[in-house]
Amino acid sequence: MAVKYNTKLILEYDGTNYSGWQRLNHTGNKDSIQSVLEKNITDYLKEEIKVIGSGRTDAGVHALGQTANFYSKNQVEPITFMKDLNSRLPQDIRIHSAGAVSLDFHSRYLAKSKMYEYRIDTGEVPCVFTRKYTCHIPDELNIKAMEQAAAYLIGTHDFKSFTSDKNLKKSTVRTIESINIYRHISESKSNRITFGSNELRIDVTGDGFLYNMVRIIIGTLLEVGNGLREPKEIIKILEGKNRQLAGKTVSSHALLLHHVDY
Amino acid sequence: MAVKYNTKLILEYDGTNYSGWQRLNHTGNKDSIQSVLEKNITDYLKEEIKVIGSGRTDAGVHALGQTANFYSKNQVEPITFMKDLNSRLPQDIRIHSAGAVSLDFHSRYLAKSKMYEYRIDTGEVPCVFTRKYTCHIPDELNIKAMEQAAAYLIGTHDFKSFTSDKNLKKSTVRTIESINIYRHISESKSNRITFGSNELRIDVTGDGFLYNMVRIIIGTLLEVGNGLREPKEIIKILEGKNRQLAGKTVSSHALLLHHVDY
Repeated sequence: MAVKYNTKLILEYDGTNYSGWQRLNHTGNKDSIQSVLEKNITDYLKEEIKVIGSGRTDAGVHALGQTANFYSKNQVEPITFMKDLNSRLPQDIRIHSAGAVSLDFHSRYLAKSKMYEYRIDTGEVPCVFTRKYTCHIPDELNIKAMEQAAAYLIGTHDFKSFTSDKNLKKSTVRTIESINIYRHISESKSNRITFGSNELRIDVTGDGFLYNMVRIIIGTLLEVGNGLREPKEIIKILEGKNRQLAGKTVSSHALLLHHVDY
Repeated sequence: MAVKYNTKLILEYDGTNYSGWQRLNHTGNKDSIQSVLEKNITDYLKEEIKVIGSGRTDAGVHALGQTANFYSKNQVEPITFMKDLNSRLPQDIRIHSAGAVSLDFHSRYLAKSKMYEYRIDTGEVPCVFTRKYTCHIPDELNIKAMEQAAAYLIGTHDFKSFTSDKNLKKSTVRTIESINIYRHISESKSNRITFGSNELRIDVTGDGFLYNMVRIIIGTLLEVGNGLREPKEIIKILEGKNRQLAGKTVSSHALLLHHVDY
């Protein structure tokens, strides 16, 4: 029997306890998000299922709106499927939406852009409640300089300096649509201290990202914010096409795949 | 050498992995917050230290602004002390402020009021990132009825029906200053889905609380919100002075000691 149905999923996951999205990427005893999904959907539908993600997320990276799809021979009733799967899946992976789509839909090939978000706890003492999802930087950052540096990254460039991938066979040209650096406001009626009130967030939107690209971009911007680099150095980093020229790869635990647009 | 110094602390903790505030309250293998603090401060100051909290928090309850103090023979330099202790303490307990106070200050006796906050995730699918700090109730709650019920609790009453303590020797009269039920707004520049955007919060402020009192008040208000009880039943529950009359004790993991006023 040929594949007859295609189901699109929007997924939220806490990446802390996973080896990342990709099936074969087991690190130590950790499962991958993809293999947990495939195992559960295969058991539920009683047919072998492969889940296609919009892209891989690194080990430890979280997602608020990862998009995926899977083809099946058996019909999937989205509302029932979402409820039943959420009751089978571990609590740190949730399906937030499930929908029947045409067989043409492919979550990786058709993704137009993705937004990643990096969360920085700027409080003097790190918040215990957001510690697993934020990076603690209590030093004052020069936001204006970071924005100037970010401006050089916008547009279509060869981002070879911004990837850790050493086996580059395909094009390293990508387009970054926008980079926003802003204070996150968490409002509470009480007007008192509240969770995550001292957060700086950086979001990066682009048509696609190379391996570690977002984490190296953030690391480079932070070095500009700390006064270790000048904003205009970005031009030379891009031109140099050499990983050694760019900044450090920041920790994955503060990075989140925010959403994917089609 | 007599005690010469008194240090006031404002503490934030994630209660998930603790048996609660109180020293002797070990449940299973879990430590109490108080004993972890005492062990670390005793080691650091090289003198036996007892930490006094504004009150006990139950196992699993969190704190954003628990207040405590300790007396010492050795002088404590607050800024250095806070930095050094935070580097010794586990990451889920943080000192957010430390200050030298007069020997008259006592965090329990002088506490004027406390605010507790209860967090409800009202999204259809629970948020993976706030799951350890919120209770998931996707059903529509009748907020107006809950506010009517809450109004009967405001003021000075005998709260004997609202405690699980069976060995009551002291007065069970307490004063509740306010109960607020509100949507928590988490604003993000992107205007997209964000953490905890579907939260209902209930804060309860009073001069002091009996054992499990906040959790039983919340449980009773939720039963009103679900239509299981009428708001005016609160009058009979208070008059009855019997734990059986009130609602269920809600889970501790969604409760937070927000701050203590002096």
